Amino acid sequence: MAERIDDLILGGFKIIQNPEEFCFSIDAILLAHFPVLKKGFKVIDLGTGTGVIPLVLVAREQALGKVIGLEYQQQMVNMAQRSVALNKLQTQIEIIQGDIRNLNAAILKEKFDLVVTNPPYKPIGQGKLNPRESIAIARHELKVSLSEVIGAAAKLLKHGGKLAMVHLPERLGDIIYYFRENKLEPKRMQVVHPMPGKKAKLLLIEGVLGAGKGLEILEPLYIYETDGVYTKKILDFYGLTGGETLKNGSC
Amino acid sequence: MAERIDDLILGGFKIIQNPEEFCFSIDAILLAHFPVLKKGFKVIDLGTGTGVIPLVLVAREQALGKVIGLEYQQQMVNMAQRSVALNKLQTQIEIIQGDIRNLNAAILKEKFDLVVTNPPYKPIGQGKLNPRESIAIARHELKVSLSEVIGAAAKLLKHGGKLAMVHLPERLGDIIYYFRENKLEPKRMQVVHPMPGKKAKLLLIEGVLGAGKGLEILEPLYIYETDGVYTKKILDFYGLTGGETLKNGSC
Repeated sequence: MAERIDDLILGGFKIIQNPEEFCFSIDAILLAHFPVLKKGFKVIDLGTGTGVIPLVLVAREQALGKVIGLEYQQQMVNMAQRSVALNKLQTQIEIIQGDIRNLNAAILKEKFDLVVTNPPYKPIGQGKLNPRESIAIARHELKVSLSEVIGAAAKLLKHGGKLAMVHLPERLGDIIYYFRENKLEPKRMQVVHPMPGKKAKLLLIEGVLGAGKGLEILEPLYIYETDGVYTKKILDFYGLTGGETLKNGSC
Repeated sequence: MAERIDDLILGGFKIIQNPEEFCFSIDAILLAHFPVLKKGFKVIDLGTGTGVIPLVLVAREQALGKVIGLEYQQQMVNMAQRSVALNKLQTQIEIIQGDIRNLNAAILKEKFDLVVTNPPYKPIGQGKLNPRESIAIARHELKVSLSEVIGAAAKLLKHGGKLAMVHLPERLGDIIYYFRENKLEPKRMQVVHPMPGKKAKLLLIEGVLGAGKGLEILEPLYIYETDGVYTKKILDFYGLTGGETLKNGSC
């Protein structure tokens, strides 16, 4: 058992991670800062992993309503539940074991204001599977495909509710196509580049259920100003001021 | 008749414009610099207007094959033909009157390596129509819709041929959806921002007929470094070095 407790810094929260299984990455942090949050919002995170996204969302907006983290892998569910308890957030954040492809009736009855998801990025057959199953499931579409994640989100949202997602630029064609098939109109997007002058590495995109057409592309988001020097935006996202090492999530 | 002859600078070419009708904009210049060009490429520009895009393409790669500029409005066709003649490019660039919605059999028989288009951006009903018909047709989808332009491009391309387009970010959802419906896979995109820290104003996107999935998003393209100061990239696109005023196309 190689678990450890890391400082999330934001909100003064702590998070339990196991470097042998799966640690959260900057992708989750970027996603958790992307949606506009409002008081009372009912939120669900599909594939919550360590539960990092619910924690950051609550750190950003304490007055959120119920935040559910849905996770397929039971050992991750247990760990995320213990992280929530460690931060005394059990009344606000609920970590549930469940399958995105087969949502249970109780969850389907709820209608959410916001669905967030940092799904597996790679279709099966593209790139090597990680020999550790927990990591392979998080990275490859072994247990759920992009189209299934987007379909599930559309079922969980109220009319006008939002799906915020982080993914690879190379999947943008699929993302928009599946959004449209599920009546989710892409309304807001931000492209993430490692640094100025470099091609994109990630993208953040938000679809709104039943909305009219019209996408806004925000200013680009850069991770580094130059080699090894994080931009102010990224340091802010981690609750850092610049002097510290950015070690969160790096197992 | 308010026609005038402007320096295109690139290639030493000149271009005839009529400020009372329609002048080319930076959008056309950005598009003409976006696709990778190869010797012998057969190219068609759908809705060529003043013919500026064919001229810039030939300035970029003199060894292009035949470049056709298709234009609906007869007075624009005449003017663009005279610009081509002024630059003695009649053997390489052919300006043809035609309707994108109803391509004639001769054009449809040709199979192009590259289709470029700077189509009208606005659906009918969105924003006020320009009282001058020639400008209204260039800006609003009065004579051709986005879906029709993309459908026509797919018919004109050989397998593996490319459609390069400039459009508004707000239409990205439509663009990708219509690309996919026409077996054009979005493969390369660049987002254009007025300056660092500002949201996008334009986007450049390339689809490849029959290609596999996978989109690359290039580094962002900025028009200005700061207020009134063009970036080096933009000055290069106009063949300028920085001292001159950027007056091309500004009627």
